[in-house]
Amino acid sequence: MRRICVALVHHPVLERSGGVITTAITNLDLHDIARSSRTYGVTDMFVVHPVEAQRELAEKVRDHWLHGSGSRRIPDRIEAMRILRVVPSLADVFESFGGRSEVEVWTTSARSLGKGMSLAEARKTLDATGRPVLILFGTGWGLAPDVVSDADVHLVPIRAQADTGFNHLSVRAACAITLDRLLGDG
Amino acid sequence: MRRICVALVHHPVLERSGGVITTAITNLDLHDIARSSRTYGVTDMFVVHPVEAQRELAEKVRDHWLHGSGSRRIPDRIEAMRILRVVPSLADVFESFGGRSEVEVWTTSARSLGKGMSLAEARKTLDATGRPVLILFGTGWGLAPDVVSDADVHLVPIRAQADTGFNHLSVRAACAITLDRLLGDG
Repeated sequence: MRRICVALVHHPVLERSGGVITTAITNLDLHDIARSSRTYGVTDMFVVHPVEAQRELAEKVRDHWLHGSGSRRIPDRIEAMRILRVVPSLADVFESFGGRSEVEVWTTSARSLGKGMSLAEARKTLDATGRPVLILFGTGWGLAPDVVSDADVHLVPIRAQADTGFNHLSVRAACAITLDRLLGDG
Repeated sequence: MRRICVALVHHPVLERSGGVITTAITNLDLHDIARSSRTYGVTDMFVVHPVEAQRELAEKVRDHWLHGSGSRRIPDRIEAMRILRVVPSLADVFESFGGRSEVEVWTTSARSLGKGMSLAEARKTLDATGRPVLILFGTGWGLAPDVVSDADVHLVPIRAQADTGFNHLSVRAACAITLDRLLGDG
């Protein structure tokens, strides 16, 4: 089984009108996505943010659940928060694997990005041996084009079977569903 | 296709040590679960809380996204928040269907509750005609025993395929995954 990691990207991501921006960290994303990640056996959840004060906030949230009053109130979260890594950029994430070529990068998106791989197909590639897989989740209105074009695999968007005319999952929900389709017992 | 509804239950639910309590509303649950619900074609998301001040808070959050500054900032959320119904008790939820016998109640749980129905089996029952389905999600440490014993179907817990030794999904993640397994295109 290949090693699987997740990155929650706050820059470079898109705003509603298509410009490249940096989003603020949503505190709850950190433990929510860490819990989903740890439940499905993801080894590392990277939180990517270029602003130092925002990284310090993320570290504070992490410490609250690892060592602070949160760890006494809800000890179950300790193990999940242990996989959180707060870094300034995607380059730092790649570096932690030994360089960009040492990791296979998968993108996720709510919009179709052209030719993509279904989650069922992607799941099959996890059983083999191979490079670690890094699954990128964009905040805001999704990952910036440069990030997408540099990736190895584009996962096709998650959809309902019926046409409901609405597709606006939170990044937390999209991450949970993606991990379940790749690694769940369903 | 049967009508499917979701209820986020804040009472009666369990605390860590097993007592029956009422939990506080987490603001973010409201739009997160409403977005997942609306994406998968769920017609109603009930928020069940016995405390009037908490219901007023939920209504305020709803109004913020339906009519307030939130509706101008992120108009995509309007359609999701329209399915939110804030009620004092599960009895009120049942009443909205015309009584308990008019709705099929499904429970969800992170722990195995004995004989349950897999999500794959449950999915097959949705295609037929039949009573509306109401899927209950408990906050805190899960739905109280009285709620569970009154239900028609107990969905088996969501698990990773591998034994990861950890199973602590947020209620938001559990709801997203449940809806995807029942109604997704995967």
